[in-house]
Amino acid sequence: MDETIINSLTSLVDFNQDELIIFMKRLKLRKVIKNEFILKPGDICKTMVIIKYGGLRYFTITEKGEQSHWFAFEGEWLGDYESFLIRQPSQNFIQALEDTELYCLSYDDMQELYAYGAKFERFGRLIAENLFISIGRSRNELASLSAEQRYINLIKTYPNISKRIQIQHIATYLGIHPQSLSRIRRNISSPKT
Amino acid sequence: MDETIINSLTSLVDFNQDELIIFMKRLKLRKVIKNEFILKPGDICKTMVIIKYGGLRYFTITEKGEQSHWFAFEGEWLGDYESFLIRQPSQNFIQALEDTELYCLSYDDMQELYAYGAKFERFGRLIAENLFISIGRSRNELASLSAEQRYINLIKTYPNISKRIQIQHIATYLGIHPQSLSRIRRNISSPKT
Repeated sequence: MDETIINSLTSLVDFNQDELIIFMKRLKLRKVIKNEFILKPGDICKTMVIIKYGGLRYFTITEKGEQSHWFAFEGEWLGDYESFLIRQPSQNFIQALEDTELYCLSYDDMQELYAYGAKFERFGRLIAENLFISIGRSRNELASLSAEQRYINLIKTYPNISKRIQIQHIATYLGIHPQSLSRIRRNISSPKT
Repeated sequence: MDETIINSLTSLVDFNQDELIIFMKRLKLRKVIKNEFILKPGDICKTMVIIKYGGLRYFTITEKGEQSHWFAFEGEWLGDYESFLIRQPSQNFIQALEDTELYCLSYDDMQELYAYGAKFERFGRLIAENLFISIGRSRNELASLSAEQRYINLIKTYPNISKRIQIQHIATYLGIHPQSLSRIRRNISSPKT
């Protein structure tokens, strides 16, 4: 079994070996190449994915252009969870930042996992709670923090981000021009104080 | 046991009689009078509440004044779920719209309920999923629907809302002036077509 995935699953719930096997059997491996889309507006998000290696970007296209909302790398889940749960078309894109291997978990397989009992239900509860918290934090950050502070938070979460995400994608996450991001990065590497 | 509460709990999970007793034992009855606050900014939201009778309003105060986000009536849950989960201070108010009786479920009691097994975990998962979906819909409505369409959706959810919520609170939910809401209500009751 894949260690990155096992560590990710057991970081939420103390699954034993048998339970991990039950879980892993439901995960379907998929390879995507750099820039390939796994979700586009109008698609129903049929699977949540967990990344074996590589990276993904979740974004929308608004009147102002591309807006990046989330990035995900090894051991992290991504998908349009709302579209997945209510089975309605997504308004978002998910695209590979680099060649990526991921495991897909379908809606039906997820429901079957829940039927295995409390630990699997707990896993679903914690995923939903964590997403709820992430969305709330993201909304609060957007409302109250400067682009520089949001960039600092982003590199705390993903220290190697500048090697793995093109600068224009980071800029669309922060809602600023790439030139402004370059200035922020210079400020951080040689602070004025 | 209270029928409104039982119906609300069993609408999510098919709890049997014993499980309902376990659940109800954790709920603490509280009476609040009209206009009383059960949450204010700076408080940690220590309990989620379910309404026996009466109504609550969840709002923030922004630069533009009061902004109502959610209303809740008989059999509905309310709380600042993010503050409740991460145990950080809320930025929101919850106030009684009328004299209200509600049952409070504390964080510790909720964790103890989860320990009873799969059905209780499922309950928590469905609550978190539903809140996640509600927030997503609310965000999309704000981004894409007119105040009139949002009002129509609100009265679909709460047909008696005009009898139970003061017009200025509905206006702060829609982000419009009370006069504009009066115009919308006249349009709906005597459509031009």
